[in-house]
Formats: sequence, C-alpha cells, structure tokens
Amino acid sequence: MAHTSGASTSSSPCAACKFLRRKCTAECVFAPYFPADQPLKFSNVHKIFGASNITKMLHDLPEASRADAVTSLAFEAEARVKDPVYGCSGAISLTQRKIMELQDEVTDLIQRIKYYEDKKGIRLPHSQSVTAHSLNVGRRDQDLQRLRPNEPHG
Amino acid sequence: MAHTSGASTSSSPCAACKFLRRKCTAECVFAPYFPADQPLKFSNVHKIFGASNITKMLHDLPEASRADAVTSLAFEAEARVKDPVYGCSGAISLTQRKIMELQDEVTDLIQRIKYYEDKKGIRLPHSQSVTAHSLNVGRRDQDLQRLRPNEPHG
Repeated sequence: MAHTSGASTSSSPCAACKFLRRKCTAECVFAPYFPADQPLKFSNVHKIFGASNITKMLHDLPEASRADAVTSLAFEAEARVKDPVYGCSGAISLTQRKIMELQDEVTDLIQRIKYYEDKKGIRLPHSQSVTAHSLNVGRRDQDLQRLRPNEPHG
Repeated sequence: MAHTSGASTSSSPCAACKFLRRKCTAECVFAPYFPADQPLKFSNVHKIFGASNITKMLHDLPEASRADAVTSLAFEAEARVKDPVYGCSGAISLTQRKIMELQDEVTDLIQRIKYYEDKKGIRLPHSQSVTAHSLNVGRRDQDLQRLRPNEPHG
C-alpha cells in the first residue's frame, strides 16, 4: 500500500521510494518529506548523504523535527551538488564576508556621526548619542570564529 | 603497506583506515586528509556522509581541490553531529540574521548622516556625500534569497 500522508497517494509512491524502486508503505519515513512531485530533492539528498544515513537520521529525530531536518539536509545536498568542493560552506563564507563589509561600513558611518556630534557640537533631535548606540562592531572576531568553515577540525 | 604521505606513517594507518579497520595503502584516498591524530574528523564525516560517498566525492574531484572539499565536508559533518536538525544551515541562518541587523543599523546611521548633510547643510571635510556612499542596503533581498536554507527545494 502506498503512503497516504504527505504528497504521495495510493497510486503514487513518494519520490524516495520511486527513486529507490521500492514499495511505498504507510510507514515510509520519507513520504511526508519527499513528495512525488519533487524528485530532485531526494536524488540530491541520496547522492550526498545516502539513503541509509538519511533513514537513520530521521529515525533518530522526533517527528516534529524531521521536516526541518529534511529542509536543511536538502539545502546542504543541493549546495554540495552545485559546488562539490565547498558546498554550503561557500554560502557561509559569503555571508561572513558580507558581515565584515557591513561592519566596516558601520564603523565608517559611526566615525562620521561622531565627527558631527563631537566636533561640531550638534545632535539629531530625539536621537541617542552614537557612543551609546546598540552596535557591537568590536565583536566581529568572536562572532565569526565559531562559524568559520576553513579551520581544521580534529 | 601503510600510507607514507600525509600524517600517517608506515606503522600508523590514517584515521579513516583505522576507523574502517582496513589496510592503509600507498594509494589510500583518505590518508592525506584524515591524519591518524584526528580520529573525530573522520568519524564525523563517516557518520553523516558515509565512507563510500566520501570516497566517490574525492575520486570525482581533482587532487588540488580535495583538501578544501574535506575541510568543508568535515565542517558540515561536525555541525550536523552537533545539531542534527539544522546542521550548518543553522550557522547560515545566524549569519543572515546578523546581516539583516547590520543592514538595519546602516540604514539608521545613513539617515542620521543625511539629516546632518541635508538639513544642517554641513559636510565632513574630505568626505563623500552619503548619497554616493558605496552601500547596497537595498540589495538585501536579492543577496539573501539564494542563500536561504528554509525554502523548499524541488
């Protein structure tokens, strides 16, 4: 009997069972997350993680977390298929560079405002001083250190 | 014969071969990237991707790219072991939130500077107008759209 929840129907096995050429049962762990109309989602995940690893990962998680897990696994698998060397670590490096650029811009803008406020003795109406601004520009190193993908892992 | 390049020696198989309990030969594809003194690196990668997938990924890449690929795979595997639901997609979400916060801060700072420059009619010496500043605050949506991990993938 084919799975009846998710996107699969009694006449249509889920994308995973179709890919693996097996019967899609009511207990299929893939069916709720790999609907028949998204074949690429499963083939990517299968290529990068393997069916048995994905099965194990899903079984180890509570049902409430499985949809999020599949979404993140599908994202990572797609990124790895597109970029076999860096995968989604490339996206992290890109966002980290963007953060550093923005932090540099913020530092520059704060210096301009401080010039107006300190040297010219003027203030915006109903604005706080920039020195009390809720910015944490100096925290760049700590924030990014633990996300850095290019460090060796023992 | 055990592999002699990388961190393994004739008396010490690489971390992968030790984990897989197999002979570490001179042709071992893992040995240059999984030295014997980093057992966790291989066990994480093995747990998440599987030995056969990693072998295939490395064989499909030119040798010059393999070290970077292993670094990013080890990073993603470690992130997935630590966070089985979101893996390194969690790190991407975190950096994206940080980017949006910084972009909001930049927008706010630009408004302050524009107030000084437009309303008060003053300029910093040797500074460009903020309106010509090399900021791309409005590009947030386009920049982040392709990195967003929470979108469905077909």
